[in-house]
Amino acid sequence: MQKRSEETQRGIMDAAVQIFSRAGYEAASVNDICDAAGVSKGAFYHHFPSKQQLFLAIIEDWLKAVDARLFSQTGNEGNVPQSLSRMARMLGFVFEAANGQLPMFLEFMVQASRDQAVWDATIAPYRRYQGQFAKMIEQGKDEGSIRSEVNAQTASWVLISLAVGILLQGVIDPNMADWNEVTRSGIQMILDSIQRRNI
Amino acid sequence: MQKRSEETQRGIMDAAVQIFSRAGYEAASVNDICDAAGVSKGAFYHHFPSKQQLFLAIIEDWLKAVDARLFSQTGNEGNVPQSLSRMARMLGFVFEAANGQLPMFLEFMVQASRDQAVWDATIAPYRRYQGQFAKMIEQGKDEGSIRSEVNAQTASWVLISLAVGILLQGVIDPNMADWNEVTRSGIQMILDSIQRRNI
Repeated sequence: MQKRSEETQRGIMDAAVQIFSRAGYEAASVNDICDAAGVSKGAFYHHFPSKQQLFLAIIEDWLKAVDARLFSQTGNEGNVPQSLSRMARMLGFVFEAANGQLPMFLEFMVQASRDQAVWDATIAPYRRYQGQFAKMIEQGKDEGSIRSEVNAQTASWVLISLAVGILLQGVIDPNMADWNEVTRSGIQMILDSIQRRNI
Repeated sequence: MQKRSEETQRGIMDAAVQIFSRAGYEAASVNDICDAAGVSKGAFYHHFPSKQQLFLAIIEDWLKAVDARLFSQTGNEGNVPQSLSRMARMLGFVFEAANGQLPMFLEFMVQASRDQAVWDATIAPYRRYQGQFAKMIEQGKDEGSIRSEVNAQTASWVLISLAVGILLQGVIDPNMADWNEVTRSGIQMILDSIQRRNI
């Protein structure tokens, strides 16, 4: 019974991603989503009190996937620069997950600019990622792998911005460059700069 | 007469940016735009054959402003790393110009994902900027300021991605970081890595 309910919820979310991507969030109606998911309006509202709540659930779902890919496998092996290189390779999986979902990704941003609750849900994770990177960089200073004069706050915004920019470019223009190579190379350039050099 | 016509055209474009930002491109009607601009439908269609053409004109206008800020003042003084540092400072002006226009910037992207003509108009300049950066980096290799083993194509995509990511983060979350400092610092990190070091 529990499983059936989860399947229905998943079906509604999958259908909503399709409808939002095609028509945009504003134009998409709960009716359209119910039709596409093959559920009644009663079933819809049993799972989601509103279209906005459904939208927020989709954002949360995406972010969980990104978190799992980026932070779960980084582990504790090696020093901080090695962990960051490993995370750069993980970004490739995020690209794959984002493949074909550009319109939805952009819908998040558009709605974030119009709706405080969506803004909070979209922005909070960037700030959280930045905090995690800053902590890693401080850790790198402690272990002696990162130069002590590096500003951990600024450097972690640079890392986040580079990742966001590559992600956006990669989904808009997937065939123009080898985005995995751009990621690997860009993170390496930043590491070249912030790493402590043995002279 | 010519001047009056240009003023009308500018008035329609300014009104359209407001309407598109508030309601989204799909939901905005030519009627809404005419009302906001205080022009007749006849005057509208005299200047713009369609809503899409108007949208494309707004994109072109933006890109001209970015071009003027980024590439006009770079001049020929100094070597390539110095020119790139100067361009990083120019990006601050692009931020200011983009201030409050996030919804419109995102509308470009959303429409690009749905409309081939808008995609072409939105994507072409990234490719062009990338080409210009790649040329600068090759020039830096020739003059001996950039390491000869640097891949100019990849390095210029890293630069573009960083700029796009900072721009997007800066318009979404303007107060979270000193984005001018993140820009300056990020470009400097990349330069640290690609510059030829005198040992």
